[in-house]
Amino acid sequence: MTDTPTTGRRFVLAARPDGLPKESDFRLEEVAIGAPGPGQILTRNHYVSLDPAIRGWLDDRPSYLPPVALGDAVRASTVGTVIASGVDRFKPGDWVMGLNAIEEYSLVTPNAYMHPIDVSQVPSPTLYLSAMGAVGLTAWFGVSEVMQPQAGQTLLVSGAAGAVGSCVGQLAKLRGTRVVGIAGGADKCRKLIDHFGFDAAIDYRGKDVEALSADIAAACPEGIDLVYENVGGICLDATLLHINHYARIILCGLISEYNGESYGARNIWQLIVKTATMRGYLVSEFVDRFPEGSKAIAALIAEGKLRFDEHVEKGIDNAYPAFMRLFDGSNRGKMILDLS
Amino acid sequence: MTDTPTTGRRFVLAARPDGLPKESDFRLEEVAIGAPGPGQILTRNHYVSLDPAIRGWLDDRPSYLPPVALGDAVRASTVGTVIASGVDRFKPGDWVMGLNAIEEYSLVTPNAYMHPIDVSQVPSPTLYLSAMGAVGLTAWFGVSEVMQPQAGQTLLVSGAAGAVGSCVGQLAKLRGTRVVGIAGGADKCRKLIDHFGFDAAIDYRGKDVEALSADIAAACPEGIDLVYENVGGICLDATLLHINHYARIILCGLISEYNGESYGARNIWQLIVKTATMRGYLVSEFVDRFPEGSKAIAALIAEGKLRFDEHVEKGIDNAYPAFMRLFDGSNRGKMILDLS
Repeated sequence: MTDTPTTGRRFVLAARPDGLPKESDFRLEEVAIGAPGPGQILTRNHYVSLDPAIRGWLDDRPSYLPPVALGDAVRASTVGTVIASGVDRFKPGDWVMGLNAIEEYSLVTPNAYMHPIDVSQVPSPTLYLSAMGAVGLTAWFGVSEVMQPQAGQTLLVSGAAGAVGSCVGQLAKLRGTRVVGIAGGADKCRKLIDHFGFDAAIDYRGKDVEALSADIAAACPEGIDLVYENVGGICLDATLLHINHYARIILCGLISEYNGESYGARNIWQLIVKTATMRGYLVSEFVDRFPEGSKAIAALIAEGKLRFDEHVEKGIDNAYPAFMRLFDGSNRGKMILDLS
Repeated sequence: MTDTPTTGRRFVLAARPDGLPKESDFRLEEVAIGAPGPGQILTRNHYVSLDPAIRGWLDDRPSYLPPVALGDAVRASTVGTVIASGVDRFKPGDWVMGLNAIEEYSLVTPNAYMHPIDVSQVPSPTLYLSAMGAVGLTAWFGVSEVMQPQAGQTLLVSGAAGAVGSCVGQLAKLRGTRVVGIAGGADKCRKLIDHFGFDAAIDYRGKDVEALSADIAAACPEGIDLVYENVGGICLDATLLHINHYARIILCGLISEYNGESYGARNIWQLIVKTATMRGYLVSEFVDRFPEGSKAIAALIAEGKLRFDEHVEKGIDNAYPAFMRLFDGSNRGKMILDLS
């Protein structure tokens, strides 16, 4: 890790995906690595976080971050080590986390997302991309700050077996909230109850809005006070039919809508008749408090109060199939690509 | 008005509408009028408020009020006089307002919505169904309590030429907010600017989401901070593309969605990327403060600071065509049916 490299591979956006990304929408490139100028650092990225949000960055439309440019490496959070530095506060050998790209080396000007991490405190550096990274922080601030669930309330989480959803459900359970999860398939539903401690689980596979609505009614006999929405589409529409007065819906993701024609939310009239609120949420609202959140999550994990599964695939040449697991639901935990 | 009547006509729900209501979904009935028992009053309804919300009450689905039963007179707000009373606080001859039905006489047990009104203070009793009624109150509490627009902000109002929309825009203008309205047709758009004092107006007619989006971008060069949504469908979708960070959308109505297959809100992903909030709103949240709101609106009208147009049609036999004007946009103000 101390030799300055001359070339590195990057997972590049070759074409804007139309619907579900195809393998030909990307290409692997081997490029020369430059030396950092003043204000820049060069990192060796060991692990990459593969998240549904990446899909949104591939479209050429207004969003909270600019679209990934054609020919650029695909944006992603990474954990790695500093190889060379033109910035005082980053020294060669330091472990850092940042919003970089799916590439072996990044030559970047550190922004607010780039910060040193202490890997000696955790069983694996990958924790900074999962429980202590954007995903865990999304769940942490989503629950502790945005949602603030109470004992006696019912929370419905969609995408509940996913990295954010499973963490949200566990954090809400720790506050005494009744937690119901929606997930795809019997295995994931069993895991929600046996592994993550949810009170009830609903399998959305093969169901239309009516069938899903009936399942939600059965699992939430007192209605729904809080929704943590990761999915959208028919999940959200069926959910809206069962919200209580003054319900709050935290809109964190819409993974069912990211690839192709939007189904649309057809039951938002329920927001009116229940005087309910739907609030979009991005973890970047709390960027100043990330260290506090990571610390809180690490403590819960150390105490055995929070489970966080990782699914690690190896090698940048597996970037495409690993990314696609997020959309067919075949990942078995937070999706991480190991580039080391 | 002092003779106790023996029969009265009622506008009855004959069948649940599928999409746009047909004339055959209703029928006029002449029924015997009973005398009020203890706790009941008999009213002669002189004016009926025809509102988009009525459409929602005709469907057999969960809502904030039970569906109108087949064979019952269609629910509506009315202004009239007490004919006979079994309740101490209501005397024969008193003017009252209530949530009754489209019928010449109502025999009812007064609920929280039934209250005496002082018609000597207003140019016409119809004001209690328009500016000082549910419509004006919806705008008043929507602006003063829920939305609280500020100077320097941009507010987009859909259904802006409608009774609620035109009032919302004027109330926001009084607070120094920049107000842009969306309405159907050049005449209504001209009226928004010349008559109601809006800063800009956009004609949605014949436009798809892209064309409407381009118009909104031109009319809101600094983006949209607040949305008062009465319409839904492509209006809401085009609007969502131009909201600013932390924008707040007050969801008051979805008139484009009330008749037939829902188009769905396909751009709610913008709520996430802009960390924006969409809040359903019903004026009934503020039922305890209706007298305060009516007084405030009456004062603004008396001072010439607020314009409120009424469109009055005569006779219960015109209930159907008058109601349908709400959906083809041919009403020229708050739609009122005169039964006197």
